[in-house]
Order: sequence, then C-alpha cells, then structure tokens
Amino acid sequence: MKNHLSQPFSVSKIYEAILQGHVGLLAKAITLSESEKSIDRKKTGTLLTRLLPHSGRSIRIGITGSPGVGKSTFIDAFGKYATSLGKKVAVLAVDPSSEKTKGSILGDKTRMEELSRDALAFIRPTASRNAQGGVAEKTREAILLCEAAGFEVILVETVGVGQSETAVRNMVDFFLLLQLAGAGDELQGIKKGIMEMADGVVITKADSDNEKRARQAQVQFQHALHLFQLPESGWKPTVLTASATQKKGIAEAWKMIEEFRKATCASGFFEKNRQQQQIVWFHQSTEALIRAKMLGSKKMISQMKILEQKIREGKIIPSVAAQKIIHAL
Amino acid sequence: MKNHLSQPFSVSKIYEAILQGHVGLLAKAITLSESEKSIDRKKTGTLLTRLLPHSGRSIRIGITGSPGVGKSTFIDAFGKYATSLGKKVAVLAVDPSSEKTKGSILGDKTRMEELSRDALAFIRPTASRNAQGGVAEKTREAILLCEAAGFEVILVETVGVGQSETAVRNMVDFFLLLQLAGAGDELQGIKKGIMEMADGVVITKADSDNEKRARQAQVQFQHALHLFQLPESGWKPTVLTASATQKKGIAEAWKMIEEFRKATCASGFFEKNRQQQQIVWFHQSTEALIRAKMLGSKKMISQMKILEQKIREGKIIPSVAAQKIIHAL
Repeated sequence: MKNHLSQPFSVSKIYEAILQGHVGLLAKAITLSESEKSIDRKKTGTLLTRLLPHSGRSIRIGITGSPGVGKSTFIDAFGKYATSLGKKVAVLAVDPSSEKTKGSILGDKTRMEELSRDALAFIRPTASRNAQGGVAEKTREAILLCEAAGFEVILVETVGVGQSETAVRNMVDFFLLLQLAGAGDELQGIKKGIMEMADGVVITKADSDNEKRARQAQVQFQHALHLFQLPESGWKPTVLTASATQKKGIAEAWKMIEEFRKATCASGFFEKNRQQQQIVWFHQSTEALIRAKMLGSKKMISQMKILEQKIREGKIIPSVAAQKIIHAL
Repeated sequence: MKNHLSQPFSVSKIYEAILQGHVGLLAKAITLSESEKSIDRKKTGTLLTRLLPHSGRSIRIGITGSPGVGKSTFIDAFGKYATSLGKKVAVLAVDPSSEKTKGSILGDKTRMEELSRDALAFIRPTASRNAQGGVAEKTREAILLCEAAGFEVILVETVGVGQSETAVRNMVDFFLLLQLAGAGDELQGIKKGIMEMADGVVITKADSDNEKRARQAQVQFQHALHLFQLPESGWKPTVLTASATQKKGIAEAWKMIEEFRKATCASGFFEKNRQQQQIVWFHQSTEALIRAKMLGSKKMISQMKILEQKIREGKIIPSVAAQKIIHAL
C-alpha cells in the first residue's frame, strides 16, 4: 500500500487531480499526508503548499457528542441536507481510540448509509497515529486537501475522548455539541470543558415520547449557557432540538450555522479566528517536533520514567528533575 | 536586594529556620526561589530537595473569582476562621497581570486587613516573572516552602486572567470559585472552562438586599453543575452562599472543604491527584526549559515571527513552517 503511494503519483498529477475534484486521488493524497516517512512528508509539504491558495473556501464544522447520542445518524441527515442544497460535503472522523484505520473506513460507510452513497459526499476517517503532531495535524492537512478538491462543507467528527475535542475545536469554525435529553444524571453528564467550547448544542432524538423531554433539556441547556461569558466570537450559543430519523430540526441546525457564518464574517471574527488557528497549528507542530527530537530517544524516555518514579516517591522536586533532563540533553 | 540574598544565608541556615517556622527566612527563601540567576536556582534546588520530606502536610485551596466579587474580603474572613481553629494559614497570590511585586505585597496586606495582623498567617504574592516555567512553577515552589514551615492551610489566590486558573487548578487540592449573585448577564458571566474546574462555588456578598438573589443564584448554579459529568475525584461540586462582612457561610465553606478532604483521602484520590500534579509540573517544567533553550534566542524568535507573518498571508502551511524551524535548529 505504502509503496505504490510514493511511486506512481507525482505531486503535479495529484495536484491537478485534486483541483478537478478527483475523489480517488484526494483519498490517496490524504493517505500520503498520513505517512510518517520523510519522503512522503516532503511530498505532502510540496503538495499542500501548492494547494494552499485553493483552500479555505468552506465552512468547517466540528461535531461532538458521547457515544449513543446518535452522531452518525445526525451527520448522515445533516450531510444529506447540505448535499440537497448542492453543497459538496466532506466528513472527517477523528477517532483517537481506534488504531485500525481500515476498519473505521468500512465502519463509517456503514454508519452513514445515505451520505456514503451520495456523489457529493466524501467520508474519511483520519488515521489515528499518535506521532509528531498527533492526529490533529493530519486532520488539519486533510481539511486543506478536501477544500482544494472543492468541498464546501467540512464536518469533523470527534468521539469525545479526552483531548480530541480541544484539538478539533482548534481547527473548525463552528463547534457543535450533540446531547441526549434527560437520560439521567450520569448519561446526561458532559465532559469537563466541552459545553463551554460549543457554539451550538443540538438535543438529539427529539421524537415521539422523547420530544417533551428534549424541549425541557433545551431550556435547561440554554439557561446553563447563559451563565457563561459571551465567547470572543460575539456569538451567543444556541440550543436546538432535532430528530435525524424524522428529519426534523436539521434545516434549523443548518440555518444556525449559516447565521453564525454571516455574523462572524461581518464582524471579521471568522477570518481572524482562522488565522489564529493557523498560528496555533504552527506552534503546536513546532513544539511536537522539538519534543520528539529531544525527548523521543529511548534513553531519554527511560530517564524520564526513572525521574517520574522518584517524583512519585517524593525523592526529587519536579523542577530539579527537569533541570536534570536539560543537562542530559 | 539580590546580592544580600545569595550571600549571608547559607542553605543549611535557611533550612533550619524554615523547619522552625521562621517567617522572615521563609519570605527570603521564596524570594530566592523567584530569582532566575543560576546560582540561586541551584541553591533553591538544594533547599527544596532537603525540605521535600517535610512538605505536603496541608490542604491546598485555590480561590478564583472576577474582580469585584469580594475575593480579598472572603479570604480575609476565611483565613481568620482557619486561624481561629489554630491552623497556620499561608496566602499566595498569583497575579500575572501585575509586574510590580513590591506594590502587590503592600496591596495584599492592606487588602486582607485582619489576616495580615494575625500571627498564624503569612501573606505573600508570587512574583509574576514569565520566564521558564512562568509564575506557576514559582508558586508551586512557594507552596512547598510554606508547608515545610508548618503552614497547614495554603490559599492560592488567582485573579482570573486567562491561563492562571488552569495553572492554579493544577497545583491545589480544592478549587473554589467565588461568584456574585445576579449582577446581570455580563457581570455574571464566567470565563470559559472555569466553572467546570470548580470543586465548590461560593456566592459572595449574600447579605441584606442581596440575600434572596444569592439563594436564587445558588439554585441556578447547582442546576448548571448538575449538567456536568462527575469529576474524577468523585466529589459533587457544592454551591454555598456567604457574607464575608457578616461572617456568614464562612464556617460552611470550611466544612465543605474538610468534607472534600475526608472523602478524597478515603478514596485515595487526594494522594493520587497530588502525585499526578507533580508529574504534570515535571513535564511542564521540562518543556518550558527545552522551549527556552531551543526557541529563546533572538534569531529564532525573529524567524518564527517571519514565518507567522507568512502563515497569516496564506503563503506557507503551518506544518511546513514548523519543519523549517526544526531544520534551522
């Protein structure tokens, strides 16, 4: 698989194909960008640099929610709604928990049944390598590639495991939280910090018996969001209800995001935020590379482990341990 | 000031004095730890390593809240309550916005009028240098020094500017958010993420006309906190009301923290959390030192600025820019 990537496709060929919206080569380019081989990194760099002027013309939407909230069904319906408006839709799934990319691909296609058969849609999980820069950088590069291929709606799905939300929040324009209505305190619970990152909340599965509870949850969430300071965007987070199976609330969710885009484009926040995200990407990427270079050797890793053990045993001050690492470099 | 620090006091002398609870030399040791001179860093390292076995026997409480919430008055009353129980109380203020340490010291003493005259209390702002490790590391070291000097209640105050809350949250056992009742949406607003870090919320100034609104806010906050997942500690964040001027609700706040301590000590979280915080300190300290070493030169800083400009202009991909930095190292 890897070999036939580096050989038959020249950067120029991929470049042209992507600009023409060739989905097969787009997929290959993403695979190329996921490779850690230095020749592939170099090719990716050249390709991305050439495609950069053709990227950016999209709305990037992050979608998160706990397992069971109905994320795939929502994305399926939401994506179909966007393609029905003639938009080209790309779905990138960030799944740091899954190690097997190919399994996920198949899984995703099954999960989003209607969308996966739509000629205007492109569904692709991001490889979950955890090397330099981690999965975040790969997804950022995949976003640029999809945009250059003419995709106007980029949906970045995350599974809500630990750090992945923050990473996704830092690469999208709008961050949408899906939430179930009143499934009891524990299920209702939201991971720390997530609610405060949301530009919008959609209470899912708001149909039949559940509809009333969904409306109650809507009010409850709207109240809770009022307690927070208005975000830098100036956008007041909105709470909606939706039923993906009954196709209710989907158009409203689309409208909310359109309004967000209009408001933040007018205020200048949209563009400013994207620039800021690029700078964050640069810093994170630099620090990850430095960290890998400096601390990535087996010797360093084992020395850090030894010091961590000493810290746990109360035998050394962390700042003194850090000095020891620096001297060892 | 700096010279007479490095000379007349030997590490052994300071060590003995701190173990005997000598407050004057404790203050000098903190000043020593704040110095960036390599000889002072070395002395601090030796001193802290020797004192380490004598540290840790305290409850570390972080206190945050927007300006105007009545933080000083609350800390004054809360600290007095603790000393009335015979506890030795240290107040460390983290103020990243103020550059002038000496001004703050004076300010703090005036701010906490009663506590500053209490023989069992020690009030000290942390210098707000922003060098390697930043203010966080200095405060962490100050906590250890105070503990070795026998202080059993460590109050770490933060002003709620950007990153400082996260830093403080990572060095304390209990994180307390002070909040005003119903001062309108804007004043009421809480910085993103802060509410979700709190182990407890105290609605301040709950007296006379304000009392009813404070009770309403209490209910509102308790509802909002119910929406969040139970934190790792297993502790359900509690919302109380208090009036520092009328000395109401102060004992209750103390009791809440005592209950937190008992519950988390019994579950093993207390100790586990402290160990984890030490490891985080180690990693942050190591990365800050590496960053300073690698990217701290004038040449590097200016190269990064140039690349950032190119990124803003859409001329280079952030990951490619990061590669350029690595090659230049």
